[in-house]
Amino acid sequence: MHTPFPITVRRAAALALALATVPALAAKTKADADAGLPVKPTVADIVKASSPADWRPLDPDNTLYMELPGGRVVIELAPDFAPQNVANIKLLAREHYYDGQSVVRSQDNYVAQWGDADEAHPKPLKTARDKVPGEFTVPIKNVRHFTALPERDGYAPQVGIAHGFPAGRDPKAGRTWLAHCYGMVGVGRDVENDSGNGTSLYAVTGHAPRHLDRNITVVGRVVSGMALLSTLPRGHEAMGFYGANEVHPPITSVRLAADVPEAERSHLEVMRTDTATYQAAVEAQRNRGGPWNKYAAGYVELCNVPLPVREQAK
Amino acid sequence: MHTPFPITVRRAAALALALATVPALAAKTKADADAGLPVKPTVADIVKASSPADWRPLDPDNTLYMELPGGRVVIELAPDFAPQNVANIKLLAREHYYDGQSVVRSQDNYVAQWGDADEAHPKPLKTARDKVPGEFTVPIKNVRHFTALPERDGYAPQVGIAHGFPAGRDPKAGRTWLAHCYGMVGVGRDVENDSGNGTSLYAVTGHAPRHLDRNITVVGRVVSGMALLSTLPRGHEAMGFYGANEVHPPITSVRLAADVPEAERSHLEVMRTDTATYQAAVEAQRNRGGPWNKYAAGYVELCNVPLPVREQAK
Repeated sequence: MHTPFPITVRRAAALALALATVPALAAKTKADADAGLPVKPTVADIVKASSPADWRPLDPDNTLYMELPGGRVVIELAPDFAPQNVANIKLLAREHYYDGQSVVRSQDNYVAQWGDADEAHPKPLKTARDKVPGEFTVPIKNVRHFTALPERDGYAPQVGIAHGFPAGRDPKAGRTWLAHCYGMVGVGRDVENDSGNGTSLYAVTGHAPRHLDRNITVVGRVVSGMALLSTLPRGHEAMGFYGANEVHPPITSVRLAADVPEAERSHLEVMRTDTATYQAAVEAQRNRGGPWNKYAAGYVELCNVPLPVREQAK
Repeated sequence: MHTPFPITVRRAAALALALATVPALAAKTKADADAGLPVKPTVADIVKASSPADWRPLDPDNTLYMELPGGRVVIELAPDFAPQNVANIKLLAREHYYDGQSVVRSQDNYVAQWGDADEAHPKPLKTARDKVPGEFTVPIKNVRHFTALPERDGYAPQVGIAHGFPAGRDPKAGRTWLAHCYGMVGVGRDVENDSGNGTSLYAVTGHAPRHLDRNITVVGRVVSGMALLSTLPRGHEAMGFYGANEVHPPITSVRLAADVPEAERSHLEVMRTDTATYQAAVEAQRNRGGPWNKYAAGYVELCNVPLPVREQAK
């Protein structure tokens, strides 16, 4: 979750601002604010005040666990947007294709990419397909629901959140696609559209490279453990590839959550994006209140939209 | 420099695409391309073909070296945009204020922030001021030059590059400000506008938090060594602060380049942003060519604009 907290000089001040409830802040505001922004609930306030119906658990059939030595990266897959690629990635996970592979590239302000470091002797496939058609866009009707943002966007005629994923749409063409925001996961490919198959995946670890939208298949989003990828040492060769003498961060395994015993699963839930609560969270980010904020943007860029994730209550 | 290279399955393919010259790619395109995008020079091609006059060295009087155990972070200061805050930061550097301080916060997809970890016993100031007015925006006339982008932006009436820095402008109000893109450096503050003084600084390490624009003073940009900040372990307390028992990454020293012996300086140059060459680099990012790219965005978001940096030729 992107947590747009204020940047204060003192940690104590930051914590006070972040943890205070709105009524508590109200009194402070009258005395302190230099500008006239009204005090409003923050995204964190709205998360705190939400009801259980505002959340949905991750679907174990569309959740991947990538186990790294430092912990677990949880990826929510988006089959609506890439049915064939997601199906192949699930086959790859089920045949344990990724086990023992590694992160091969970490380029600052761009991506971490993982797969088979041994290009001369690629690991053979068992059940998965060697080539899968690129699913750079899909018909709008394929996607369950879409919460359109009123915001204008430079990269798409329309943007919004589709069942928890940031997405663009072209209503005239009847097509939609996932946007390359921080944490989104895509399928590496060579020049031909169908040259990817999920054996090489990447996650965005920098400012959204939205020029990749509609150019490559996006299959999901990291919902937990993102720091395990974003803090990896950057590779020292061109484009952030690790050189032959650099450590390639190992992947212990990748499993579909449904294949993992219940006791070993992560129990995460994501905020539903088709609710009034969610609209309030987006609005809290679009027009942030005082007293720390002096100016409210009146706009929220697609990749700054909050997508809250939390542990399920026991 | 943001290097928007293709994400290929195979490293060899990525290198071939990145290193090929345009003529060499042209033949390949005819056979391989699925889409009809013309082959065009990339940003890297334009950097390679540039002339010495397309570059300017960093000004030692407005360049900071932050020395970390892992290497040097080079920050170009922007006195046009924050004259009083930049002046105070230079005083702080000259009185060795930052030496022995530490990074106190690393929040994923947001910022790394450094300063005095001991809030109970803050390090005393010698020559620097305790409070400096916030310089959230400045008069447009204060800024030497501005290369406007034709792109519409959600956070500002107008955007462009001001002498190497991404900036927003409000021509009606006659004000301009630096944008919170990846790598930009700002001044932490508490609630009051004048509560920052440069003793607490931060760099953006995630997707651009543009909602901070016009809310806080931005003083410059990391032009080299960004990975030393972006790969720091994330802090485990609220907002990415390091806990009492977590390592606070130490800062060896911060010096103004002008105060460092010539032999120990970094000799970097940045591409001038008021030239035809620079316009060509922006256009290469706005409308990327084939054969890997299948769709050209026709748009470049402010924080995806290339800002090339390189070692000076000997």
